[in-house]
Amino acid sequence: MTNLNRTIGQLAEDELLARIIPQLPAGRTVIDNGDDAAVLPADDGSVVACTDVMVEDRHFRTAWSTGGDIGWRVAMQNLSDISAMGAAGTQLLIGLVMPPSTTLAWVEDFARGLRQACEAGAFAWGSPVGVAGGDLSGGEKIMVSVTALGSLCGRKPLTRAGARPGDTVAVAGTLGFSAAGLALATAGKIPARLADDWQDLSESGASADQWAQYAWHIYRRPQPPLTAGVSAADVGASAAMDISDGLVRDLGRLARASGVSIELTPPCDLPGLVSIAESLAPSEGKALANSWWHSGGEDHALLATFHSGTELPDGFTAIGRVLQDCEGGALTGIDPEAARGWDHFGQG
Amino acid sequence: MTNLNRTIGQLAEDELLARIIPQLPAGRTVIDNGDDAAVLPADDGSVVACTDVMVEDRHFRTAWSTGGDIGWRVAMQNLSDISAMGAAGTQLLIGLVMPPSTTLAWVEDFARGLRQACEAGAFAWGSPVGVAGGDLSGGEKIMVSVTALGSLCGRKPLTRAGARPGDTVAVAGTLGFSAAGLALATAGKIPARLADDWQDLSESGASADQWAQYAWHIYRRPQPPLTAGVSAADVGASAAMDISDGLVRDLGRLARASGVSIELTPPCDLPGLVSIAESLAPSEGKALANSWWHSGGEDHALLATFHSGTELPDGFTAIGRVLQDCEGGALTGIDPEAARGWDHFGQG
Repeated sequence: MTNLNRTIGQLAEDELLARIIPQLPAGRTVIDNGDDAAVLPADDGSVVACTDVMVEDRHFRTAWSTGGDIGWRVAMQNLSDISAMGAAGTQLLIGLVMPPSTTLAWVEDFARGLRQACEAGAFAWGSPVGVAGGDLSGGEKIMVSVTALGSLCGRKPLTRAGARPGDTVAVAGTLGFSAAGLALATAGKIPARLADDWQDLSESGASADQWAQYAWHIYRRPQPPLTAGVSAADVGASAAMDISDGLVRDLGRLARASGVSIELTPPCDLPGLVSIAESLAPSEGKALANSWWHSGGEDHALLATFHSGTELPDGFTAIGRVLQDCEGGALTGIDPEAARGWDHFGQG
Repeated sequence: MTNLNRTIGQLAEDELLARIIPQLPAGRTVIDNGDDAAVLPADDGSVVACTDVMVEDRHFRTAWSTGGDIGWRVAMQNLSDISAMGAAGTQLLIGLVMPPSTTLAWVEDFARGLRQACEAGAFAWGSPVGVAGGDLSGGEKIMVSVTALGSLCGRKPLTRAGARPGDTVAVAGTLGFSAAGLALATAGKIPARLADDWQDLSESGASADQWAQYAWHIYRRPQPPLTAGVSAADVGASAAMDISDGLVRDLGRLARASGVSIELTPPCDLPGLVSIAESLAPSEGKALANSWWHSGGEDHALLATFHSGTELPDGFTAIGRVLQDCEGGALTGIDPEAARGWDHFGQG
């Protein structure tokens, strides 16, 4: 039996790969990743590609996030970028740098998180998501780079640049919960982990403890609405964008790219976020919750704009509109206090 | 005017990107990298993909390699993997982690090295090679991850698994010079940099100093024979593989993947390598040179097998043959002393 407490410094690279590769789905390949490069199908004559890096003590802490959490999160933030183009993810390529003291158990857990993210993608898109290649190296801190590839399946790509006056601005997925989870941890109030059969609480009543657990889960394992990009493309959305740096900042980017101004209509109440915020700052709960919603990053919700009169696809909520006759790039309807956000609460 | 001694810790990410992106070629794109993901053409319905990570003080030292050298090397080692499939490189995606103390001059030089590698690829393949995406992050050490994408342009991919009894084994590109360059530097005998108009010395007579400069150049800026994979595919090569871990180790992998045995015919003399080796170890020059040739990694030469009687494409030299009636996976004709190699000389 293999001792999972062995460190990778005690294993040959081939031994390590033999533990990891069988855990990972292959997805659709012509030639798989045992050769110098993988050959992957690109049936519609194009491929969608993006890349992201996560560095220990900058983007995550091993005290807060398990290997599985980190594998999930780095895969999901890339799959969310693919989704935002109106595409389905097909393959990931992984670069993993680890200190020699990293245990085999951690690496296997990391691979499990990657696999779970691939499975979630496959479920969302109805087509396999695999790991087409990778490279391992030693280093002083954990560093993970992921390149995600995807397919538009013949669809026209969604960009940030297509929003037009009169369009409805809508969002799918959670906003502010990752920032709330991080704020809880930063305050030393780390909630219990959610049970494996946790349910999305965003539309139901829940106790303060449940909301805190939910936010902590979203921080560690963000739940981007992976089907939303394809759904938006299918009803002719005019623009779309993954929200990774906070709603206000990313909405500003979309407005500038499209050359339009946008009026935001914030929600009347944010019961989950307010409940968490009040546990941290009783007298400022509402303001803090508002700030998370406007400026919290890394939930990886999807922002999209739809021609006026389009029925919004499942999962989208209208949060504003593109203004007529306005100078491009401006945002209105935003509480400046709420929009300062994010940086106040650290970046994990 | 921008002060190039400013550090990236003093620059906003947008400012930094504005300095880097204009230096990089875009290649062929449908949607370029200003959006959540790039959309790239894949005209023949498939895409070739691989990834590699380089970590400071593991794969390079900033005292020995400039930013430009590192950008060149990480791009080239990936483009070489693409070439080994019989494909042409089309796009790179870059993850770059840097300490806040990194200067703007270093980053611009890194981008220049990437661009030069893309230009060398474009020249070799007669089609553009671009940078389709990237991500920047802070960290304690420099870490670069590159994913390379490529196109087979309708060709059948070359794998490691196709060598057949009777085939000729051949190699294109340099062998052992990267290890020789590293050995010089490790011994504290760093040669002068080659002039920009340096010429390939591998077939000509040269002085000991020139050979040392050449080896030092190959260590910092390996020169994989990027056209060789396509040329090999075009004459129906049976297998191909990038040599990154040394000839003997990688030849063993090809033999095992193909289920064949291979007899190696080492060259009679290695004038360049012997000249360098004698400057380091006068009495053991020939043995050391032999060891570099057999076991030195990171020249990124191309190994390929050809059906008996095939005229080898330009740049290839025969170095052995696939044996008839032999158990799979064995190598013969190898001096065991020479094959120990590589690890003795450190891995930079």
